Amino acid sequence: MLSLLDRYKDINDVKKMSLMQKKQFALEIRRFLIDRVSKTGGHLASNLGIVELTLSLFTVFDLDRDKLIWDVGHQSYVHKILTGRKDKFDTLRQFGGISGFPKRCESKYDFFETGHSSTSISAALGMARARDLQHKNYNVVAVIGDGALTGGMALEALNDVGYRKTKLIIILNDNQMSIGKNVGGVSKYLNKIRIAPKYNKFKKEVEDKLKKIPNIGEGMAKHLEKIKNGIKQMVVPGMFFEDMGIKYLGPIDGHNIKELTEVLNSAKKLNNPVIIHIITKKGKGYEFAEKNPGKFHGIGPFNCGNGELLNASANTYSKTFGIKMTSLAEKNKNIVAITAAMRDGTGLNSFAKKFPERFFDVGIAEQHAVTLAAGMASSGLRPVFAVYSTFLQRAYDQLLHDVCMQKLPVIFAVDRAGVVGEDGETHQGVFDLSYLTEMPNMTVMSPKCIDELPYMLDWALKQNSPVAIRYPRGGDDIPLKPLKKFNMGKWECISNKGKIALVAQGKMVQHAVLAAHRLKNRGIDVKIISACFAKPIDKVMLDELIREGTTIITIEDNVVRGGLGSYILEYVNTLGGETKVINLGFSDEFVQQGKVDILYKLYGLDSKGIENTVLRTAALSHIF
Amino acid sequence: MLSLLDRYKDINDVKKMSLMQKKQFALEIRRFLIDRVSKTGGHLASNLGIVELTLSLFTVFDLDRDKLIWDVGHQSYVHKILTGRKDKFDTLRQFGGISGFPKRCESKYDFFETGHSSTSISAALGMARARDLQHKNYNVVAVIGDGALTGGMALEALNDVGYRKTKLIIILNDNQMSIGKNVGGVSKYLNKIRIAPKYNKFKKEVEDKLKKIPNIGEGMAKHLEKIKNGIKQMVVPGMFFEDMGIKYLGPIDGHNIKELTEVLNSAKKLNNPVIIHIITKKGKGYEFAEKNPGKFHGIGPFNCGNGELLNASANTYSKTFGIKMTSLAEKNKNIVAITAAMRDGTGLNSFAKKFPERFFDVGIAEQHAVTLAAGMASSGLRPVFAVYSTFLQRAYDQLLHDVCMQKLPVIFAVDRAGVVGEDGETHQGVFDLSYLTEMPNMTVMSPKCIDELPYMLDWALKQNSPVAIRYPRGGDDIPLKPLKKFNMGKWECISNKGKIALVAQGKMVQHAVLAAHRLKNRGIDVKIISACFAKPIDKVMLDELIREGTTIITIEDNVVRGGLGSYILEYVNTLGGETKVINLGFSDEFVQQGKVDILYKLYGLDSKGIENTVLRTAALSHIF
Repeated sequence: MLSLLDRYKDINDVKKMSLMQKKQFALEIRRFLIDRVSKTGGHLASNLGIVELTLSLFTVFDLDRDKLIWDVGHQSYVHKILTGRKDKFDTLRQFGGISGFPKRCESKYDFFETGHSSTSISAALGMARARDLQHKNYNVVAVIGDGALTGGMALEALNDVGYRKTKLIIILNDNQMSIGKNVGGVSKYLNKIRIAPKYNKFKKEVEDKLKKIPNIGEGMAKHLEKIKNGIKQMVVPGMFFEDMGIKYLGPIDGHNIKELTEVLNSAKKLNNPVIIHIITKKGKGYEFAEKNPGKFHGIGPFNCGNGELLNASANTYSKTFGIKMTSLAEKNKNIVAITAAMRDGTGLNSFAKKFPERFFDVGIAEQHAVTLAAGMASSGLRPVFAVYSTFLQRAYDQLLHDVCMQKLPVIFAVDRAGVVGEDGETHQGVFDLSYLTEMPNMTVMSPKCIDELPYMLDWALKQNSPVAIRYPRGGDDIPLKPLKKFNMGKWECISNKGKIALVAQGKMVQHAVLAAHRLKNRGIDVKIISACFAKPIDKVMLDELIREGTTIITIEDNVVRGGLGSYILEYVNTLGGETKVINLGFSDEFVQQGKVDILYKLYGLDSKGIENTVLRTAALSHIF
Repeated sequence: MLSLLDRYKDINDVKKMSLMQKKQFALEIRRFLIDRVSKTGGHLASNLGIVELTLSLFTVFDLDRDKLIWDVGHQSYVHKILTGRKDKFDTLRQFGGISGFPKRCESKYDFFETGHSSTSISAALGMARARDLQHKNYNVVAVIGDGALTGGMALEALNDVGYRKTKLIIILNDNQMSIGKNVGGVSKYLNKIRIAPKYNKFKKEVEDKLKKIPNIGEGMAKHLEKIKNGIKQMVVPGMFFEDMGIKYLGPIDGHNIKELTEVLNSAKKLNNPVIIHIITKKGKGYEFAEKNPGKFHGIGPFNCGNGELLNASANTYSKTFGIKMTSLAEKNKNIVAITAAMRDGTGLNSFAKKFPERFFDVGIAEQHAVTLAAGMASSGLRPVFAVYSTFLQRAYDQLLHDVCMQKLPVIFAVDRAGVVGEDGETHQGVFDLSYLTEMPNMTVMSPKCIDELPYMLDWALKQNSPVAIRYPRGGDDIPLKPLKKFNMGKWECISNKGKIALVAQGKMVQHAVLAAHRLKNRGIDVKIISACFAKPIDKVMLDELIREGTTIITIEDNVVRGGLGSYILEYVNTLGGETKVINLGFSDEFVQQGKVDILYKLYGLDSKGIENTVLRTAALSHIF
């Protein structure tokens, strides 16, 4: 017999199912998710947590009219299954395949693209206001996790929602987790209201009892109404939301389709903003994910049967960073580590265990993290903020003002710099070399191999100004000998023969070395320079290259626009000579998802691409 | 007889004053502030509002040990008067003079530099944590306005403060204003608690009455404790803060030195985070500022006697923008305007009055503003977000992801682009050409004169992708004939004679025209090109210039690093020819305060500076 999932055709099918069928359907969806994600990798735990929610949303709302925005977006797998993309799940997150995030080009039911956290309420509010001004009549629903709710822009949006009373449904998916365990005062507040008794039942009970109290004193009478409100404040858990002007419904069991459907139907009838607080379990229905939702947040291919990762993890930059941080912290009491909900991803788990009082997970709050670090640095600590390149974008202004303008010695461990692969457009870290090198007083470094990272950290700690060290996801392609001593703005010349110099940044040095090997096989020598500093650039070395009449090919894992190559070109140009500079990097577009090797090849940044550029350049300039 | 202000020597003097003397001192400080700021211009209203607070802080705390952080920083004038800078107030905000914001180079009592809103809690928390880890024993106090509290990063910081219970004093200076009237749900919440009765008195009264109720039912008894808590929630106004883990004290009259001193002394004794909610009046003590605090927020020189501005305001870009927006909105119902607490500054006051339902002031919340606009644009509206260049930095990630990645037709009216003058380092808009041109799918324009701005808006509204129009503070230096029709990426050639082309952006075209006049007087012709598009650049025109062997001098009101000139250079370089490109703009440092004419001159961006560059270039290249 065909399963419900096999027979499922379109969004209206969910509406036709009985409650029992929906429960069965939920089971089948979970099985499908576990099976498919175990092959492609992806975000599993959060999707397992919102199966019933998604089915309830599809039951109550009509997505041919109504709009549904998934915050962070990686919780949209069930939504994708239900909107015609089930059969494409074997291409999930692969080059040319379906994205792990909502994409408007994939489906008319993907109303807004999300990838970074905490944007959904703003976007949904914009849609709701558009609806009202255009006298249309659809519902707008934003689904946001309790982790994402602590991001500043979500709170900015809530502030605005309450102000104008725009009809809008916000579903607060409270699983007490962001990626790891959730932190902070908002979480504390939610925890308090999570365990509170249900409003309606309790309120009635207490009010009935109050009514029965005979002969209340006269002075007391005038307070009775206030006491009632007080009771309401106590038992309506979401009073803060209500005080802001947003109706609060909840907490609701987020795995109970019946209850969910009821509350969504009530919310639909309201003409004001409402927040529905649902409690879900991240990883629900898959034992290993329930036990370790952090591991199954975003995971590579794994064995369904035992939940073990298929590819034994090799050495990574993140791991090496974490180990070095711990050993540095043992020697220097002033070193502290900051993360924005990325303890495990950035490799800081052992640091956190060993130095809990010196480890600060601020939640999904990059802006605060940067200025917190600035405050610490201004008072004698040596803070290291470990953050993914793409998320550091959130703190552009704080980097510029609170750190660079005051020249405070904060270290930024910029992980996942360059293309990250399967997470695609929203997670590629290909802008940081541009915006970081534009900031006065900032030093920007990149290790050419994993083993160089610890030495860069040593050096960075000796500086009395901000230093960003950017490094890629994963590990090395080839082993290289690390540089152990650094001088501000001094590059490393790895090979000094030939009329063309490959000036490469970070891991691109490995590609340059491989390209040089290929060229050597053709009998062509090229210089290889590791631009370990992206800022300041090595003007002495550049002057020498220019003097020798060398052609310079810059190679970076960043957009060309405003990047390291552009920076080098700006300098070379001021000298007014004849030196040729060729800039390799990503062109002016968003870099799609796919394995990094495919992406490097696509943009001519693999060793073959670099070799071709050298040969073309040489031919054009009659160099060889 | 010498006044208290005349006799004032150092921070310890405040401690020695009697309450009566402090009141007298406050009067004198207000008179001093009004007198000095009427001459130099500056932030008056907010400083008049915190005179008693500052005196109380200096009474209770010892700034030789304790640290005090002023959010937004422009409320630090009284602090500056009390820390040895009284006699420099005639240089306030002038080139080489004292800053209108805290500057660590000015005084050891300026502990952290602030300029943009909402950073103080993060910085203070960083200092407090540094203190604890280093086993030191000072107090850290952050003073933040209710307007700044709605900024996302302040809420991120509050979330973190409540989490770890770090000892920290936050003073919430509630004047019910940010720059204009304050907006949003948080404001609503504060308003509610503002009018609540004082906790201690009321709590006792109610509890006494409850105790007197005889024979409470048995089922009731178990609820009694809960009811008490409920009452506490009702009468402790800041229960939300308390639920987050931050003790709440208030509301307190922020002009009552006695009360302020008492509550600050209590707070000092606590070992946990505490928020003190004080109510102040913006503009306090100066009739005209009390009546119109918005006007006196940041003001130019004015007549003390009648509060009128001394310099009749000429036509400005902001004013023209506002007028055009209103007329566009009359014709096109889909146009809406968004501002982040800058209604008046961006010229949107009349739009707001005429189209209140299409005008959205989201508070100090640039991130939310951008994504709100994206949501609106995705649903058929044509949102225009009017924002100062320096504040748009706060929304880098939202611009990139929520607008550019989805190619949504949001228009950014980027006001105060380029140097803004007296506000100095933190407010110069000299990075936007770099970061906006790095964003795929973004179009960036600049009108060369005020009259061109309306035509650019017309054109931008016809596009189906994001467009940023950047324009400077103030008005024009010289009249120019506006271009009325635009084609994507097509520049305007104003003058086509000579071997050197001045490719200028925005108002810099006026400087280029003036420079060309000076050169003409020497018998030298130069081409003048208005790069009305900073992105895309006009490759056709550049190709032609290159073909003609023209030397290109780019002129922009932005840092050179990654800016328009760099973008042009990147392109010219790909062609591999011999064309010379010279980039004029700001060098890699923060541009200090001072009249813009002084700053342009300093960086060689005035007409004389441009003339010199042309002459030098010509001499080096033997062009003439």
